[in-house]
Amino acid sequence: MILNRALLVICDGMGDRTHREFGDETPLGIARTPTFDQLASTGSVGLMDPVSPGIRPGSDYATTALLGYDPRVCYVGRGGLEAAGAGMELKPGDVAFRCNFSTVDADSTVVDRRAGRIERGTVEIARAVRAIRPKGIKDLRIDFQATVAHRGVLVLKGRGLSRMVSDVDPHATGVRFLKCEPLDDSTAAKRTAAAVNDFVLQSAKILKNHPVNAERIREGKPPANIILPRGAGTLPPFKPLHDLYGMKVACVAAVALVKGVCRIAGAEVITPEGATGGLDTNYGGKARAALEALRDHDLVILHVKAPDVASHDGDFRKKASVIEKIDDAVGKILPSLDMTSTYVAVTADHSTPVNVKDHSGDPVPLLINGPGVLRSNVSKFSENAVSRGNLGRLHGLDLMPMIADYLDKAKKLGF
Amino acid sequence: MILNRALLVICDGMGDRTHREFGDETPLGIARTPTFDQLASTGSVGLMDPVSPGIRPGSDYATTALLGYDPRVCYVGRGGLEAAGAGMELKPGDVAFRCNFSTVDADSTVVDRRAGRIERGTVEIARAVRAIRPKGIKDLRIDFQATVAHRGVLVLKGRGLSRMVSDVDPHATGVRFLKCEPLDDSTAAKRTAAAVNDFVLQSAKILKNHPVNAERIREGKPPANIILPRGAGTLPPFKPLHDLYGMKVACVAAVALVKGVCRIAGAEVITPEGATGGLDTNYGGKARAALEALRDHDLVILHVKAPDVASHDGDFRKKASVIEKIDDAVGKILPSLDMTSTYVAVTADHSTPVNVKDHSGDPVPLLINGPGVLRSNVSKFSENAVSRGNLGRLHGLDLMPMIADYLDKAKKLGF
Repeated sequence: MILNRALLVICDGMGDRTHREFGDETPLGIARTPTFDQLASTGSVGLMDPVSPGIRPGSDYATTALLGYDPRVCYVGRGGLEAAGAGMELKPGDVAFRCNFSTVDADSTVVDRRAGRIERGTVEIARAVRAIRPKGIKDLRIDFQATVAHRGVLVLKGRGLSRMVSDVDPHATGVRFLKCEPLDDSTAAKRTAAAVNDFVLQSAKILKNHPVNAERIREGKPPANIILPRGAGTLPPFKPLHDLYGMKVACVAAVALVKGVCRIAGAEVITPEGATGGLDTNYGGKARAALEALRDHDLVILHVKAPDVASHDGDFRKKASVIEKIDDAVGKILPSLDMTSTYVAVTADHSTPVNVKDHSGDPVPLLINGPGVLRSNVSKFSENAVSRGNLGRLHGLDLMPMIADYLDKAKKLGF
Repeated sequence: MILNRALLVICDGMGDRTHREFGDETPLGIARTPTFDQLASTGSVGLMDPVSPGIRPGSDYATTALLGYDPRVCYVGRGGLEAAGAGMELKPGDVAFRCNFSTVDADSTVVDRRAGRIERGTVEIARAVRAIRPKGIKDLRIDFQATVAHRGVLVLKGRGLSRMVSDVDPHATGVRFLKCEPLDDSTAAKRTAAAVNDFVLQSAKILKNHPVNAERIREGKPPANIILPRGAGTLPPFKPLHDLYGMKVACVAAVALVKGVCRIAGAEVITPEGATGGLDTNYGGKARAALEALRDHDLVILHVKAPDVASHDGDFRKKASVIEKIDDAVGKILPSLDMTSTYVAVTADHSTPVNVKDHSGDPVPLLINGPGVLRSNVSKFSENAVSRGNLGRLHGLDLMPMIADYLDKAKKLGF
C-alpha cells in the first residue's frame, strides 16, 4: 500500500487586494505562475479566511490556525513561540519574551532599538546576562539566548509567573524605555513584572562595561547597552499534530516565530542553508529540502516569508516576482513527486495588500491538488479566479482536517 | 492620508425566495436596480446568513448580528431596545417593556389591542401613569413614555429585577389580558412580575377616568383604558462599536427597534424628516442624510424598513418597486461619493418571502464595492446571481469585521 503524502506551501502574506493600475488584479493575479496555474486548474480552489472574514492575523496567529489550533483559544503571546523558534526548552508556566539588544543614552532614552543592527558579540553578551539572578524573587531562574542580529529571547522559569505584563521596549526611539507593569491584579503578574524590571537593570549594569561594547564604542558603533523585553508569552497548549491527526510533520522555514509554532506542534523544523526569511532566500534549496523531507514525513510544510517582505515594502512588482520564484522552485521539484499519492496545497497564512503595507483581514487563495480532488478548471491561480472556485470559502481551521482526510489519517466520529 | 469611509445600506426584509410565476425570480431579481447592479458587477457579491442557515431572526435580532454582536449571547429581549429606540436612559439591571395602549371591556377582555390606533392624548396618558409607584415593592421607580400611535415603553428601575417574566398582552382580542408571571424561580422575577401586575392595575384605574378617554368615549372611539406590557428586556451588553472597531458610526433609521440597537451600540441615530418606517418613507431624504453623515463618520448605516412592510403584505410587485426606490435614492448620492476611498455595501437584515409574509431563515444577498475588492462580474444584483458570487457564503457576524478591515481599523492579532 502506497501511503499518501502532502506538501503544503505557505507563501507568507501572498494574499492581496485588486489594484486598479494593474487591471484590477493582484500580484498573484499578474505573476507568471505556470506550476500553480496547472495545479489550480486540475485541482480544487477557493478562498480561505485564516481566522474568519475581516480578522487581521499576524503570521504566528495565522500559522496557529492553519495548523488546526484555534488561535482565539490557543494563542498565548509571542514570547513562547520565539523561545521555541530559538530551540529553547519551555515548560508550562514559564514566561518568555522577545528581546532587542538596544542602545540608550545616559538619560535612559532609547537611541537605537537595534543597537546599530549589531551582528557580532551577542553570544558573549547573552552568556553574561544569563547568569543574572533577579534579586528578592525566590525560586526563579532565567535563561537568555541571542538569536539573529539584534534579537534575543529571555525566559523566566519557575512557578507563579504570568504573561500578563507589559513591554519594556517602548517601540519607538527618543523616549525612555518603559517599566514592565502587571496587566492584572494577580501576584504572578506583579512577581513577573518585578523580575523583568530587575533583569533589565542588572543587564544594563553588566552591558555598560562589557568588552563587546567597549570595542563597539571604539569603532564608533552604538553599544548594545540595554536589553528591551517585549511580547510576554507562554507555551501554547498544543496537542502534537501526530496525536491529533496521526501525521508525521516537517516544516521547512527560516522565520523564528513560524519555526516556534511548528516546533511546539511537534513538527520537525528544517532550515536549509541559505534560507534567510528574506527576499534573498534560497528558494530552490528550501523546495529541495521539502522534497527530501517528504521521504519520511506524511506532511511537509514549506514556508516562504519573501512575499510578506515585498508586501510590507509596498512593492507590487517585487511581490509578483517573488511569487514567481516560489512557483518556479515548486515547479522544479514537482516532477519528482508521485502525483498518484501526493497532495500539493498552496496558500498564504494571511493577506498583506501592497497598498496597506501590513497584514489585512482579506481571505487568502487556496489550491489543493492530488488524487480524487474535485476539478476547478480555473485557468489561473489568483484571488479573483479562486473566489469563484469549487472549494467555496473555508476557514484556516479547516485545512489540517482536510489534509489529514486526504491522507486517510482522519478518525471517524461515530459509527 | 485619506481615511476610508463606508456606507452600509440595509434593506429590511429584502431577501426572498424564487417565485415560479415571476420566472423563478425574486422581487430583487426582477426589480430594475441599475445602481445596485453596477456596484455588484464591479464589486464582490455573495449570500449572507444573518445568524446561520435556516435561523429566522427578527429585525432587532438580525441587526444585532449585523452590528457584530452575537445575538445568541447578546440578545436580552425586546424591551431594552424599545427603550433605547425611544431615547430613554436604561441602566444595567433595569427592565423595560414594549407596551400597547389597548381597550378592554368591563370583564377585562381585550377588545382592541391598539385602542383604535390612538394618535392624540398618549403623551398626557403617559405623564399620568409615570407617577405610579408600585405598592409594597421597595426601591423601585418606574418610567413610562409614549412613542408612536398606540405604542409606549415601560421601564422598571432599581435593583433585584429580572427580564424573565411573561407578557401581559395576550396578543389576541376576545380574551382577557394576562397576569405577568415569573418565568424562573428567582426572587427578582417574582418581584418584577408583581411590579408589572400592580402597574397594570394602577394604570387601569387612572385611565378609567382620564380626560383623554372621556373625550374618546364621547367621540365613539375605543378608550385607551389599559396598558399591556410585553417583551421584557434589559440593556444588551454591547461594547461600543468605536471601542471594538475604532469606527465612528451613524445610523439613519426610523424604526424604534433598529434605532435602539444602533444607539446601544454607540451609533449616532439620525431620523430625517419624512422618514416613517413605512412604504411612504422619504427615500431620498434618508439617502441624503446618510451622505451628509459620511462627512464625519467612518461608517454610516442606512436602514430602510419599506421592503419588509411590502413583504408582510405579501405584495411581490410592491416589494420590487420599493427596492427600486432605494436603488434610485442610493444612485442619486453615489456621484457625490469618492469611490477611491469609500466602500458601499448593500444587504438585508433578513429575508421575508412574500408568500410566507413573515421573516424566514433564508440567506440575504450582499454586495461590497470599494477600492481593492475582488470583482464578481455578475450582471445583476439578485439572490440567484450572488449565490454563485465571489464572496461565498458569509455570516452576519462577519460583516462588521470585514468593513473595519477595509477601513484599515482592524486590530492585528499576534505579530
